[in-house]
Amino acid sequence: MECEVSESEKSVMELFFEPRTVAVIGSLKEGYFGGYVVIKTLLNAGFGGKIYPVNPSYQKVLGLKVYPSIKEIPEKIDLVLIMINRRSVPDVMRECAEKGIKAVIVVADGFAERDEEGAKLQNEILEIARKAGIRMIGPNTAGIVNSANGLTPNPYEPGYEKVKSGAVAICAQTGMINPQAFPYADLHYGLSKICDFGNKCDVDECDLLEYLEGDPATKVITMYLESIRDGRRFLKMSRRVAAKKPVLILKSGRTKEGAKVSASHTGALAVDDEIFSAACKQAGIIRLEKFHELFELPKIFLQPLPKGNRLGIVTLTGAVGVLAIDEGAKYGLSAAQLSPETIEKLNAIFPGLGKSVVDIGPPMAVGSYIAIYPDILKTVLADDNVDCLLNIIWTSPFKEFVEEYLRFYEKLRGNYQTTIATWIYGPSVSLINEMSGRMEDLGFPVFSDVETAIKALGIAYQYSIRKKGEK
Amino acid sequence: MECEVSESEKSVMELFFEPRTVAVIGSLKEGYFGGYVVIKTLLNAGFGGKIYPVNPSYQKVLGLKVYPSIKEIPEKIDLVLIMINRRSVPDVMRECAEKGIKAVIVVADGFAERDEEGAKLQNEILEIARKAGIRMIGPNTAGIVNSANGLTPNPYEPGYEKVKSGAVAICAQTGMINPQAFPYADLHYGLSKICDFGNKCDVDECDLLEYLEGDPATKVITMYLESIRDGRRFLKMSRRVAAKKPVLILKSGRTKEGAKVSASHTGALAVDDEIFSAACKQAGIIRLEKFHELFELPKIFLQPLPKGNRLGIVTLTGAVGVLAIDEGAKYGLSAAQLSPETIEKLNAIFPGLGKSVVDIGPPMAVGSYIAIYPDILKTVLADDNVDCLLNIIWTSPFKEFVEEYLRFYEKLRGNYQTTIATWIYGPSVSLINEMSGRMEDLGFPVFSDVETAIKALGIAYQYSIRKKGEK
Repeated sequence: MECEVSESEKSVMELFFEPRTVAVIGSLKEGYFGGYVVIKTLLNAGFGGKIYPVNPSYQKVLGLKVYPSIKEIPEKIDLVLIMINRRSVPDVMRECAEKGIKAVIVVADGFAERDEEGAKLQNEILEIARKAGIRMIGPNTAGIVNSANGLTPNPYEPGYEKVKSGAVAICAQTGMINPQAFPYADLHYGLSKICDFGNKCDVDECDLLEYLEGDPATKVITMYLESIRDGRRFLKMSRRVAAKKPVLILKSGRTKEGAKVSASHTGALAVDDEIFSAACKQAGIIRLEKFHELFELPKIFLQPLPKGNRLGIVTLTGAVGVLAIDEGAKYGLSAAQLSPETIEKLNAIFPGLGKSVVDIGPPMAVGSYIAIYPDILKTVLADDNVDCLLNIIWTSPFKEFVEEYLRFYEKLRGNYQTTIATWIYGPSVSLINEMSGRMEDLGFPVFSDVETAIKALGIAYQYSIRKKGEK
Repeated sequence: MECEVSESEKSVMELFFEPRTVAVIGSLKEGYFGGYVVIKTLLNAGFGGKIYPVNPSYQKVLGLKVYPSIKEIPEKIDLVLIMINRRSVPDVMRECAEKGIKAVIVVADGFAERDEEGAKLQNEILEIARKAGIRMIGPNTAGIVNSANGLTPNPYEPGYEKVKSGAVAICAQTGMINPQAFPYADLHYGLSKICDFGNKCDVDECDLLEYLEGDPATKVITMYLESIRDGRRFLKMSRRVAAKKPVLILKSGRTKEGAKVSASHTGALAVDDEIFSAACKQAGIIRLEKFHELFELPKIFLQPLPKGNRLGIVTLTGAVGVLAIDEGAKYGLSAAQLSPETIEKLNAIFPGLGKSVVDIGPPMAVGSYIAIYPDILKTVLADDNVDCLLNIIWTSPFKEFVEEYLRFYEKLRGNYQTTIATWIYGPSVSLINEMSGRMEDLGFPVFSDVETAIKALGIAYQYSIRKKGEK
């Protein structure tokens, strides 16, 4: 397969994410899984296109007319979802071909990931699709999301209405990124597109990279992969895309044992891990290490990139400041040497404050803390020697403290150039959660632990170098 | 200083944690910090000993008689807390010496961590203490906790009444482990003792290791250190203690830059990191890498140790199963080869279930999931080839699912031999949190991410080898 896809294929990717008409072929029984859930979820999310349920045993579902087969639908169908017994999929795929369908998501499982019969069936449907010029996502996929148009054809009950709309796209070889598995309604940053490749026998990481490269809603791309379908195409494509947008990838199957298990999970062959690492380096991909990073790290890129590696730290705990310096060194970050003016200003606010790690623990003990906090933070942010800032906040057990912080951050919003990563700790889980959410709503990304906050700044710095190299 | 401490010193450590009488010397003004908070917190936590507030400007506080100086208190005082201006500390320390006090916590800051004057003052109070046979924690400390007797003399307002009582002791060179900084009321496992060493000019990690070695309430010891006061004593002591109880240590100042900052934070000299690593290996200490691990990892030791390295995985997501195999390899864990009987049983429950990673995703799609889940988990737990289990649970967005799970875990409680680490994910943050808490209350530790869950099993396995080596 060539790296550049033709114009007609490009528009097929648009059929997946911006269909005007969607046919849902599957069970319409009420429950936690199936076509009924897909239709309910589409309706709840306010999907603007037309929905055509297909099932020979029903007349109507959720107020919509049900068609006995895809062929009976009088209109042109942009996207078809198939969630039926695996043995029936080839026939339905042939009907799709006859009707001139170009985009199909095969949610049904039991293919190459299960047994030999499944592998044969997978080859059969792939052959039908190829001959008919159908592009296919799956099989064995939880599907896709486009948050902008309410296209959330989720086959499992997500329990909430909408995926918050935003600039991060997430793709994976697992349904772990789909709405039923992740609390996207509780996120305080938004997503643009979601895609579970499933067994990835046709549409793959390269197709999505190319589509997302040109997707104006997507500013950051994050992926979980167990295998790469076409190494050369991937290298070429990811290099091109990473030059424009940060591409973050978590890849499993790093060890032999992991790779073996991976093969039995999606039926895919794992790529040698060292080759993949080298490819990431060449292409400028940011390689992730932990599952939660898929969801946490992209948001750092919703801020401007740091201009250099000089890390400022404002903290209520000196100890964690020390840990952060250690951790930052892993990513090439170095403790910022504050300017003489900054040091003087800080020492005037409280004696001894003007150090590389601005430790506001001592002023807290004398009680004047919350009154001087805004000045301290603004002084450090104004220093040209500080490229990025680790902001460690302690929330007291009192809500009025939180409100004071937030009034300050509301004013600060937009009035600084520095890349900021925040970590909040304190004696009340509910206040930490509330403050974190409200800080993020104000555009200050908050991380679940201090090491992840530092890593966010570290990868932002590393990506800034890559971008400079491009120029 | 010798490794073995004398009997009289041992009982001094008991004065710190089990005092019958406590004098609190400091400001009694209502606020977020100071002697007033200490007394309020002691009273809230139900401290059973007698409390003597000391302040020349007050007659009564919170219903207690206030004494103008420590000398005026008619009774013998076991423990003194000092939280006054640094320049006044030497005089008060002399009064303590005159009164025959043996245990003092100097909460006051501005000593070696601040400037030269502070360093001199620190030497002065240390000299007074040494001459008088006073043991001192601090200066610059947020103090200690003994959850069993309500001894929570916290100088900062914690916002909750009690630290939950349990078997984990936590010590650190930072107040980040004290009640005002960490939500100990929200924890679902309990703590035995807390100690912030502060500038650690007298009582140090070795004193605490020795005390906690003999403390029947403490089953696991976790520490954050920036420096080691006496390397040889530490090595000898930690080897002895780690043979009895797991000792987990996070040490910062790993890099040169970090060590420099550390010196200006508590005034302590950092130890060479490689020497420390070697010492950990020799002594059998478990070395931590991230701050949150201090609070998350100890709880794995509240279960029996795994008998070997064979890792079973029951998961609703194959992808994370693969990640877990990769991650487990870091700690010497290897995917368990299930016995033929187990494989047969699992395949009878659902076709294809009987693999190294028991992936219950496919049965979920057919809807029978929650009905067959208990049998699947019990079957894997009953397999002698499984030494430890990574238990990945998906909570649906429906509370009745959570209740079904919990009914099963309530029955399972105590009826298995395997070390279990659980990770819960799903579309609802509040349900995840509720289920996590209730699982932990039932004795199944739940971890914040899958890599931490695997690490917990990994360090439990590694400690089991160390214990076997001891025999």
